[in-house]
Amino acid sequence: MFQTFAVRGDARVASQRLPEIRQEMKRLNIDGLLVPHDDEYLNEYTPPQFERLLWATGFSGSAGALLVTPDAAVLFIDGRYTEQARLETPAEHFEYEDLRALPPWQWLRDNPGRVSRLGYCSKLHSQDEISHIESTDHLEPLELVPLDEHPIDDLWDERPNSETKAPYPHAIEYSGEDSSVKRKRIGDELKRAGADVIVFSNPNATAWLLNIRGDDVPHTPVALCRTVLHADGTAAAFFAGHEITEELRSHLGTDVEISDEVNFGDYLRSMGAAKKTVLVNKKVCPGFVYQALSESGATIREADDPLILLRGIKNEVEVEGFRRAHVRDGVAMVKFLRWLEENWMKDISEIDAVRRLEAFRAEDDALQDISFDTISGSGPNGAIIHYRVSEASNRKLSGGELFLVDSGGQYLEGTTDITRTIALGEPDAECKDRFTRVLQGHIGLAAVKFPPDTSGYQLDILARQPLWNAGLDYAHGTGHGVGTFLGVHEGPQSIAKKAPWVPLQPGMILSNEPGFYVEGEYGIRIENLVVVRDSAMKDMLEFETLTLTPIDKSLIEPSLMSAAEIAWLDDYHDRVWETLSPLLSESDAMWLREATTPLT
Amino acid sequence: MFQTFAVRGDARVASQRLPEIRQEMKRLNIDGLLVPHDDEYLNEYTPPQFERLLWATGFSGSAGALLVTPDAAVLFIDGRYTEQARLETPAEHFEYEDLRALPPWQWLRDNPGRVSRLGYCSKLHSQDEISHIESTDHLEPLELVPLDEHPIDDLWDERPNSETKAPYPHAIEYSGEDSSVKRKRIGDELKRAGADVIVFSNPNATAWLLNIRGDDVPHTPVALCRTVLHADGTAAAFFAGHEITEELRSHLGTDVEISDEVNFGDYLRSMGAAKKTVLVNKKVCPGFVYQALSESGATIREADDPLILLRGIKNEVEVEGFRRAHVRDGVAMVKFLRWLEENWMKDISEIDAVRRLEAFRAEDDALQDISFDTISGSGPNGAIIHYRVSEASNRKLSGGELFLVDSGGQYLEGTTDITRTIALGEPDAECKDRFTRVLQGHIGLAAVKFPPDTSGYQLDILARQPLWNAGLDYAHGTGHGVGTFLGVHEGPQSIAKKAPWVPLQPGMILSNEPGFYVEGEYGIRIENLVVVRDSAMKDMLEFETLTLTPIDKSLIEPSLMSAAEIAWLDDYHDRVWETLSPLLSESDAMWLREATTPLT
Repeated sequence: MFQTFAVRGDARVASQRLPEIRQEMKRLNIDGLLVPHDDEYLNEYTPPQFERLLWATGFSGSAGALLVTPDAAVLFIDGRYTEQARLETPAEHFEYEDLRALPPWQWLRDNPGRVSRLGYCSKLHSQDEISHIESTDHLEPLELVPLDEHPIDDLWDERPNSETKAPYPHAIEYSGEDSSVKRKRIGDELKRAGADVIVFSNPNATAWLLNIRGDDVPHTPVALCRTVLHADGTAAAFFAGHEITEELRSHLGTDVEISDEVNFGDYLRSMGAAKKTVLVNKKVCPGFVYQALSESGATIREADDPLILLRGIKNEVEVEGFRRAHVRDGVAMVKFLRWLEENWMKDISEIDAVRRLEAFRAEDDALQDISFDTISGSGPNGAIIHYRVSEASNRKLSGGELFLVDSGGQYLEGTTDITRTIALGEPDAECKDRFTRVLQGHIGLAAVKFPPDTSGYQLDILARQPLWNAGLDYAHGTGHGVGTFLGVHEGPQSIAKKAPWVPLQPGMILSNEPGFYVEGEYGIRIENLVVVRDSAMKDMLEFETLTLTPIDKSLIEPSLMSAAEIAWLDDYHDRVWETLSPLLSESDAMWLREATTPLT
Repeated sequence: MFQTFAVRGDARVASQRLPEIRQEMKRLNIDGLLVPHDDEYLNEYTPPQFERLLWATGFSGSAGALLVTPDAAVLFIDGRYTEQARLETPAEHFEYEDLRALPPWQWLRDNPGRVSRLGYCSKLHSQDEISHIESTDHLEPLELVPLDEHPIDDLWDERPNSETKAPYPHAIEYSGEDSSVKRKRIGDELKRAGADVIVFSNPNATAWLLNIRGDDVPHTPVALCRTVLHADGTAAAFFAGHEITEELRSHLGTDVEISDEVNFGDYLRSMGAAKKTVLVNKKVCPGFVYQALSESGATIREADDPLILLRGIKNEVEVEGFRRAHVRDGVAMVKFLRWLEENWMKDISEIDAVRRLEAFRAEDDALQDISFDTISGSGPNGAIIHYRVSEASNRKLSGGELFLVDSGGQYLEGTTDITRTIALGEPDAECKDRFTRVLQGHIGLAAVKFPPDTSGYQLDILARQPLWNAGLDYAHGTGHGVGTFLGVHEGPQSIAKKAPWVPLQPGMILSNEPGFYVEGEYGIRIENLVVVRDSAMKDMLEFETLTLTPIDKSLIEPSLMSAAEIAWLDDYHDRVWETLSPLLSESDAMWLREATTPLT
């Protein structure tokens, strides 16, 4: 099992740990301490040994921050986790703030005098965050006390094992491009920007750049490491005490120096001493990296990180790999949906469904991991957008409800991410109306033709307008990028109301996932992955849908749909049938035949 | 006549003026001099006495910049004016660069050593531009030489008269809100931001804030002046030698100190001496204002200028005024369109059409000015998006061509801006197809329902998708804000592919103007003004179309349109008929009856 169902939050820990933290703060002579959710690699999924915020507060959300003072503990919560934070933390010990509306640096400005000496660990904050705190006008003096290590690390008894596993090469048949070529392309970008060096602090960047993978981060096949790349294409990679196999050494070759992370700081300072110009994006550059560079004399050139765009544009080998991974994933999903249809009434729980789905995926030996903890939400739990089913929250599936399942697999060929919403028994008219509008939005986006130089945010409305026409909307983005056997969320492209300008280019992979949610009642989401490709129409682009899994027709109200929308759905289902049926057992194929017949 | 048709560009002047400028540069000991198009008030329409770029180069575009060095003259051109710049300037004297792709500060970085002492007048550049030049890493030393006055001002013989006209009050029946209330609202915003003072350097800001208008800028009824506003709502207004009438003095009251612009710098320095905190948006703050403040000791707080958003949200009185202005404008447009239909074949030129249209508008005494030089483009001239007809470019209207006319009026009640495209004789199938797609885009935007917290850029695709579906697009934005008897282009809201996040709010007025252009052949644009209002649907917003003028049905291919699109058009035409027909002569009404009958 790749996933656990243990309750992670714990409302009992804060009353014990906040005093320990305050005692340590006294010793350090600080009256404020930041505890961010981010770890020293700015990972999206935080390895357990870096879950400092969870240790300190008992709050298990995937974003947030804590500010401890002698007489207060301010928990900054992402809007998605408001409810969860209240359940997992004792209100008598905390003040609560909205992380986005009032991040810690603004709170410090708006609450002059509550902190006079602020401790923070410069490994756990981007330089951008630190600059915000430094550059704000404070009405009362605020002294910043950078700390090399976070004080919690000393206090944390029974800290989870941080042993790393040996990284391994990611073969050219999956990456489609040799690391030396990738390094040269980025090196050329550095030269163009007048820079000598760039530092990659996030393990996913190194994984892509060096074509290596690892097993140190939940559901993301990366090793905890960092890389410094020079404009000539040579690099130095810093591992966290990993075993380095001969295979890896030979894979990396002589142009990549292998080192240990204990040498990382000295290496950065040697860049400064050599008066190098370093390309830095302060938003993804940890403070300690920035400081080591600038204090040792390096010239900082602020610019976007060129790796992020190059990684986002998949090559032909990767796109073909994604297609194959989606065939594997589609086979598992069909088996699961058939099983669900035939068994949901037999006292099945959300956790049972997760186990069955994972088992079906694992029937294919190619499965390496799931790409994130499966969201398995029945009835009201379907309305919790980032629901994680635990022993405590687990519900039995029940007739007349909707069941939302958002899951994905990690295959060497690519990463998948799919959501289907299934009617358990006969759905009511409201659910059918809402589901159909979500589907219309999904189709509107899937079928769009657009010119080059179109950013994802321009297309976002296509997924929302059928809901807007009924006065409805959903409170999340519509599409995120996905890595190749890497992070299931990957920039720079996205489809959302607010997003940076990133023109969509052939080879970019995105999710297409409109939804609709009624708190306490039900949730709907339909998610496929798509890849941008050239359209047959001159100078235009379009999406190819990669995900191959039927969409529940019992939830569709055909009278709402246009002929073109129905034709899209029928074509899609026909493609699902044609591609998957040869790979299925006869009984699964019979089920799929029925699930993919034309709508009308 | 509010408009002239004189040829403004002049390819003969540069060879004479560049040497004069270079001689003056020698005297000033500088080897680089910037000549921006912007004037000292950052006006959109530059008064003739501030057209320094035109004087130096002969190029008459409404955007651009010149960098003069001892042996080169680099003209930075906005993409809209590439062709025009080549026609109006002798190529042997210039290098040409794209103003957006390579603005002067980037050119200076990319051409190290070509300039070592750069002169610029700190009145004519925003502090943002100056910061860009200052903060760029230059490979060769670049010394900046700020100049109090631009050297061209001394060289310019026969400089146009810069006499100002007396400003006058803008009555509460048009503004809908007393200046003291506006000043208090912005004062409260200053307090919220922790600032004491804000400086308004653009005359349109002062006009709105103090409810005054003037006659110093072409087509924009403002006086050349600046205002310093304090958080307590008191202000000091600095006029450029204007006659100040007793009426104006009494209108401004005792809370607004009236001063002359010669005292402006001292006043700014007194803010610094008093250790005031000043709210500054560097993008709209001229360098000399920023420098006077910061050098004298003021604390600069960078933030958005709160006036811009408050001005953008029209109050009920203003919206009602816009409705009345559009009835006036609709009457003139109907007369004009009838005249055009009956006379285009009678040897009529583009200039004749402009004169007739202005005459029809002027039949209503309420007309104060046109809101910009009318774009009157027949056949290929219609494809020039910012076409200005001159004696040199003037064409006769001719059968089988399209005629595009984009114009507007300044009424005390509001500013109008409308584009119609008319078939002269029978249009061909391609034109009908393209026109219908532009109309479908126009309707898609006009009819949308959207939730609060929607920015204009999210809606932009609605105006483009019918064109995208045929592999087509247009290279301009879809909508801009409009002032109340003020600038015809006014922020902060807009509808475009790329735009800042500005949620649309009830009372915001925007243009809705998709188009399509084939260079050398024809141009199509359909433009109405719309105002954001609450929808009958709960918690949703929608647009009310303000402009009342028929759309040429002979250019519509009904088979392309959906039933809903046709219903929108028929409803719109019905509203035009109902509103305007009582105000028309019998013969004009008969024409309008025909022009507004249902499409099918």
